[in-house]
Amino acid sequence: MLKEAEQWVELNRQSSKHVDRLDGLTVINAFFENSTRTLLSFEIAGKRLGADVVNMHAAQSSVKKGETLIDTAVTLNAMRADAIVIRHASSGAVQLIADKVDCPVLNAGDGSHEHPTQGLLDALTIQRRKGDISGLTITICGDVMHSRVARSNIYCLTTLGAKVRVCAPTSLLPAALDRMNVEAFSNFEQALEGTDVVMMLRLQNERMNGDFIPSPREFHHLYGLTRERLKLAKPDALVMHPGPMNRGVEITSDIADDLDRSAITEQVEMGVAVRMACLDVLTRRSRGVEGWS
Amino acid sequence: MLKEAEQWVELNRQSSKHVDRLDGLTVINAFFENSTRTLLSFEIAGKRLGADVVNMHAAQSSVKKGETLIDTAVTLNAMRADAIVIRHASSGAVQLIADKVDCPVLNAGDGSHEHPTQGLLDALTIQRRKGDISGLTITICGDVMHSRVARSNIYCLTTLGAKVRVCAPTSLLPAALDRMNVEAFSNFEQALEGTDVVMMLRLQNERMNGDFIPSPREFHHLYGLTRERLKLAKPDALVMHPGPMNRGVEITSDIADDLDRSAITEQVEMGVAVRMACLDVLTRRSRGVEGWS
Amino acid sequence: MLKEAEQWVELNRQSSKHVDRLDGLTVINAFFENSTRTLLSFEIAGKRLGADVVNMHAAQSSVKKGETLIDTAVTLNAMRADAIVIRHASSGAVQLIADKVDCPVLNAGDGSHEHPTQGLLDALTIQRRKGDISGLTITICGDVMHSRVARSNIYCLTTLGAKVRVCAPTSLLPAALDRMNVEAFSNFEQALEGTDVVMMLRLQNERMNGDFIPSPREFHHLYGLTRERLKLAKPDALVMHPGPMNRGVEITSDIADDLDRSAITEQVEMGVAVRMACLDVLTRRSRGVEGWS
Repeated sequence: MLKEAEQWVELNRQSSKHVDRLDGLTVINAFFENSTRTLLSFEIAGKRLGADVVNMHAAQSSVKKGETLIDTAVTLNAMRADAIVIRHASSGAVQLIADKVDCPVLNAGDGSHEHPTQGLLDALTIQRRKGDISGLTITICGDVMHSRVARSNIYCLTTLGAKVRVCAPTSLLPAALDRMNVEAFSNFEQALEGTDVVMMLRLQNERMNGDFIPSPREFHHLYGLTRERLKLAKPDALVMHPGPMNRGVEITSDIADDLDRSAITEQVEMGVAVRMACLDVLTRRSRGVEGWS
Repeated sequence: MLKEAEQWVELNRQSSKHVDRLDGLTVINAFFENSTRTLLSFEIAGKRLGADVVNMHAAQSSVKKGETLIDTAVTLNAMRADAIVIRHASSGAVQLIADKVDCPVLNAGDGSHEHPTQGLLDALTIQRRKGDISGLTITICGDVMHSRVARSNIYCLTTLGAKVRVCAPTSLLPAALDRMNVEAFSNFEQALEGTDVVMMLRLQNERMNGDFIPSPREFHHLYGLTRERLKLAKPDALVMHPGPMNRGVEITSDIADDLDRSAITEQVEMGVAVRMACLDVLTRRSRGVEGWS
Repeated sequence: MLKEAEQWVELNRQSSKHVDRLDGLTVINAFFENSTRTLLSFEIAGKRLGADVVNMHAAQSSVKKGETLIDTAVTLNAMRADAIVIRHASSGAVQLIADKVDCPVLNAGDGSHEHPTQGLLDALTIQRRKGDISGLTITICGDVMHSRVARSNIYCLTTLGAKVRVCAPTSLLPAALDRMNVEAFSNFEQALEGTDVVMMLRLQNERMNGDFIPSPREFHHLYGLTRERLKLAKPDALVMHPGPMNRGVEITSDIADDLDRSAITEQVEMGVAVRMACLDVLTRRSRGVEGWS
């Protein structure tokens, strides 16, 4: 999929960035949870590929009228969608929908479970900056427990041969770490030591109320990525963040905006390309095109 | 219109489901009341026909700034829409707008007045399952008084020669029944007797507060469609519901999900096709194409 | 730009109103403040020109998650937008974004600062009705102080050689009037005397609470445009309003709906054409087309 995405990176950098690959197909973005970036990214991806793209926002949806998620899925299916992109606040909701429809379903983030296109776009970003992912040491720091971004990155990056470290306050480390093939740290300085990539997670406001961390300031003190701390990583270590950032909490502005070190805007760019690749590849069967299925 | 819709049913079942019929035309979906299904259905219909489709959501609209409905209509018209699709919470609002604009206006539901494309899609669903509608006995059960779905179905189905029965608690039967050419029942068992089609209406939450019905449970007890009750209808009686369903209130899940008896997902599919037919036919005059006008 | 817009006025009056001028380009409408008319107008403009158009609504945006405006801008840029249209409640926000992105940024209204396409569409409307703008006397009446519409019109119309008068209660006249090359009035009758165009501004509800004006009724009494007052202007004086109108407050319905005198719906029509011209002209450089840059 990373290889497939490269052609779309190239296309998106052209002045004219629209192809007829998905002409005639209908893509539905069904977002049951607010998300600007991911929705925009998928919408642009679908439109640039020539599909008819429609967005369903939960705030206006029958869900508010008490309809079950499965009925919503069956409805979208009956409208003859060729691909459905789902974001949902509940872990597992996307699988529930995928089981009920005939077309490919893309997970745009479900609860604290998975966010696979984020994992892919991060891998693509790393690969383009660092070459082979295999053998790299990658440190993911922040609210690992609740992060679908962390989970999808762990799966993706360990599969591609990276050595993954996670770092969080003990209260924010998931229980199932031993099955995840990662090394866990509570001390950020130790976790940074000799790392090739530092991936900071977004600290969500709802965790900042004292239940999980004492305060944003306290969190920054222990786990914020500063210029000083970054020196513990390899000299050319890459800094990443899925956005939106809390500047001054999990990352300082001088790091975030340092174009030599930070790949944060590239992540956004790769996001569109990866989603184009996913939409292209996953609709090949229905389009009668050879390739993945 | 039902005949016209058949070509779009076929198209929508193809992998490539986009034509250039409305190329160059602008369709505005102006929804002053939330609706996922109907908006999605119209948006997909317009896009598959090749039109430039834009949605206007009331929540963001000038209506909130106190603009009159007529000024909104005049504004949409001045942007040179070729068709305007309106949903509004007030009965008659769509007619008010239609009187002020130059292009065809499609009623996507106005208050408790009419929802004509729902009537058409239901008729198309019945016709495809049962053949000729003329002579069939069709029972519509639920909050008939407040239901624009019921009203449009009554007009459509009686015009096509069906014998229509309506069934509701006395408090939810409209006053003007005698002019509607239907037979009214308060006893659901009697209404089901020998019927070819059972169309259940959605029980809206705002009616469930004791003013119209004692409770959802009580309603289900008297008017919920169960396997047992369905036996009173003809052996091959078709079950319909405009959605979204309150499972366990007006209909039980085993009936709703019984693909031999339930046409509920077909209704959704026919919805897109019927709306494509309406958009196609109603824009023929401005496109200089012969046919309806 | 006014000359450029004429071709789009013509196109929009055709039955088929879509060209391939911006085929392959991505236009993002990023609206951080609600606006139906302006958003619809830009969305229709972009789609009729063949661009892939996506809307970002602030209500669903990362802005709510505390992201800085600049991060949002950088994100939109990284998705390789070819033009970004911004509306924002804060004066200067659009410039802040424009400084951070590679593509043209169109200001769709920022705070009480500017609304340039409104200035252009008003100038186009006047020019088409009155011929040369140079030498005309144009009176802008209402909440001049808080009005970006007033500001953009003053810049545009004085540049084109018109003599501009502004009229408002003293509390609603801006301090910097002397640098704006306009004549200020508090007496509406005097301001109307011999004027060629009367442009009424929308009185915003939040000003009507007694801080700026005693009451809508009081405002109407002193500054409402009535048939009687209009007689003080030239016999063929044109009446304009950017909409949405508060009928009975700043303007009476008989004036607003008098097609001989009122150009209010034409303003809406010209809005789409002017925005098409702006999108076309501003993307010429990236499309490698000669012309403005």
